[in-house]
Amino acid sequence: MGHRYTVLSGGIGGAKLVLGFSAVVTGDELTVIANTGDDFEHFGLTISPDLDTLMYTLAGEVNPETGWGRRGETWQFMDALEALGGETWFRLGDRDLATHVERTHRRAQGQTLTDITAALCERFGVGARILPMADQAVRTRVKTDRGMLDFQHYFVRDRAVPRVLALEYAGAAAAMPTAAALDAFQSADLDAVVIAPSNPYLSIDPILAIPALRDAIRGAAAPVLAVSPIVSGAAIKGPTAKIMSELGLEVSALSVARHYRDLLDGFILDTADRDMAGQIENLGLKVAVCDTIMKSMEDKVRLAKAVIEFARSIK
Amino acid sequence: MGHRYTVLSGGIGGAKLVLGFSAVVTGDELTVIANTGDDFEHFGLTISPDLDTLMYTLAGEVNPETGWGRRGETWQFMDALEALGGETWFRLGDRDLATHVERTHRRAQGQTLTDITAALCERFGVGARILPMADQAVRTRVKTDRGMLDFQHYFVRDRAVPRVLALEYAGAAAAMPTAAALDAFQSADLDAVVIAPSNPYLSIDPILAIPALRDAIRGAAAPVLAVSPIVSGAAIKGPTAKIMSELGLEVSALSVARHYRDLLDGFILDTADRDMAGQIENLGLKVAVCDTIMKSMEDKVRLAKAVIEFARSIK
Repeated sequence: MGHRYTVLSGGIGGAKLVLGFSAVVTGDELTVIANTGDDFEHFGLTISPDLDTLMYTLAGEVNPETGWGRRGETWQFMDALEALGGETWFRLGDRDLATHVERTHRRAQGQTLTDITAALCERFGVGARILPMADQAVRTRVKTDRGMLDFQHYFVRDRAVPRVLALEYAGAAAAMPTAAALDAFQSADLDAVVIAPSNPYLSIDPILAIPALRDAIRGAAAPVLAVSPIVSGAAIKGPTAKIMSELGLEVSALSVARHYRDLLDGFILDTADRDMAGQIENLGLKVAVCDTIMKSMEDKVRLAKAVIEFARSIK
Repeated sequence: MGHRYTVLSGGIGGAKLVLGFSAVVTGDELTVIANTGDDFEHFGLTISPDLDTLMYTLAGEVNPETGWGRRGETWQFMDALEALGGETWFRLGDRDLATHVERTHRRAQGQTLTDITAALCERFGVGARILPMADQAVRTRVKTDRGMLDFQHYFVRDRAVPRVLALEYAGAAAAMPTAAALDAFQSADLDAVVIAPSNPYLSIDPILAIPALRDAIRGAAAPVLAVSPIVSGAAIKGPTAKIMSELGLEVSALSVARHYRDLLDGFILDTADRDMAGQIENLGLKVAVCDTIMKSMEDKVRLAKAVIEFARSIK
């Protein structure tokens, strides 16, 4: 089978829906286009947080308490580094570190991020295709009231405290999608393209900022759907609501629908926001209403099934 | 006080004598010129095995079972890397890794190896001055029956099994000693320069291959002494005897005395080799005979005291 479901995703929040999909479709039916705008170089290592979160989640290897990092992780390296006065704001677990070292080593040998991700996923026993949005570097930068910040400085070091004035995705305009990523939108088997309930500005927009990828999504041979990351005027997790309000946007599912409008065929709204369905339909989109908050594995599977059902109804 | 004892040393064997010295003289009286010919780049990290062994040993932080690496070390990183199919022939413990990451990070910021070593030693509470033989890279390469090998490939990966045909110290001829290293031989307070019982070919010759350093040792304001690493025709540890025989040399303390002859004022011979004293005196050297095998801390202190006593008798 080829690609049937292609999901655009960032880290923790998007990975939940991806995990739900992985339980209801076979590995080779599922493709994830992962945000790499959060990638950065730290201690000479190339770190790809969203790729790793997706990989660890699908491998059953993710730390269930945090949603990132590895299960049963130890912190000997970090503790020793702290004793040496090293930089410890980005927490690198002993086992997680092996992923970064192996990725960096393979990159130095000339392998692409796409190939490295495939090799690591195979080692971790991940059946789904996890594809970086590009092999070339795209780096999210955050213009804030404290100046221009690299994404991880803004997000992890400064805990998303600075006020966001604007976002830029350096390198995106010049980045070329990989053949694998383009194929994920052009496959004749495609049933849906799904924008996961990730942060639209930090996790999805870096993907959409690559012109040829945006075009491929627009030209996809199947409905393009988005699951709202905003429920009842708040984000499930993370600074999505804070950023929206700093950018002068109404914090609502409707705002998100407007944001993706030119790409979408349908929008999945939480039951709590059902009153908004009419306004979103007025944007020219089909709307599905269901419970979108994913706490248990059952929640994830239920939402994945609802998205699949919605796609079928549109197709 | 300035430099009183300047010890040339490699890793494990030399570190034992250095530890003995550290127990009988104050930190600022003791300077160690460390071999960096074993340094290498691995996974993008700059690793300095002999500097680390000396630092860990003097900090009481060394793994007492191996003589290298850190006490109470864990191996989560290495196990995770192995699971990913990474290179595991060079064993990097979780806590040890912090030293390499911090060193590499500081180098990337433009700090010299001398300054970085001083900063790390301060963090580890090491009182003695540990100085890399040079800030510029010098790399030991081993010409073998299996071709030319980088030192760590020969020594660790291939377990010193290949037959040694010749050694070279790439970069040594062009390397300039640091001001700190030169000072360690020119200080008016100097009581002795001591060549530790390290491997002469792998650990000491890289130091001596730097022309200005060799000249500084020859011009030192105090007696230059060497402790034999060969006792009863065998090396205490490591491949010294194997290499000597592969290089066509007689495996004896006398061979080592001949090897260092033009630099030395005195030679310390093990009690077991006392018969050789006359032959070594015939080379024009003073000879001291004592127990040189260092198992306990008492052995190390006793040998350091014997070396100091011998230096006084010559001066």
